[in-house]
Amino acid sequence: MDVRFAVNVRPKDGILDPQGRAVEGSLGHLGIAGVSAVRVGRRIELTVMADSESAARAVVERLASELLSNPLIESFDVEVLGGSSSLVGTA
Amino acid sequence: MDVRFAVNVRPKDGILDPQGRAVEGSLGHLGIAGVSAVRVGRRIELTVMADSESAARAVVERLASELLSNPLIESFDVEVLGGSSSLVGTA
Repeated sequence: MDVRFAVNVRPKDGILDPQGRAVEGSLGHLGIAGVSAVRVGRRIELTVMADSESAARAVVERLASELLSNPLIESFDVEVLGGSSSLVGTA
Repeated sequence: MDVRFAVNVRPKDGILDPQGRAVEGSLGHLGIAGVSAVRVGRRIELTVMADSESAARAVVERLASELLSNPLIESFDVEVLGGSSSLVGTA
């Protein structure tokens, strides 16, 4: 089965986030008020082919911690997206 | 009320995604198989203070299309995160 996942990576609390600060600094130019606590991270979407959703999730968790995030300064969560499907002949 | 949102920005289908290709190219080194269609985007989390959730969402939609994404090559969606709260005295 193919399972589509999203990995959301964000700077840990207390870690400086220059991109978030830049967004906050631009709000005035756009005339937007009331926005705060902006944090800019990454979102990686990917498809995993595995025998089960749990096996696929294990692959994604490993990928997220070893390649997609820096555990010293970032945290991540894993989301299953809608498009989970079992395709005949691909397992 | 304060509403916490996430904006997920991703490269549109058909747009070259060098970061996604780089991730795919690294999978072999990690001994990970079965991963495909990797797309790397951004995830921006932010808090909006507004009179209602719909007013807050309108602010986020504007911010996402004018500042956080490039509509020529990227698409986005907006997610309400759990931490919606009404704080007495802040409205």
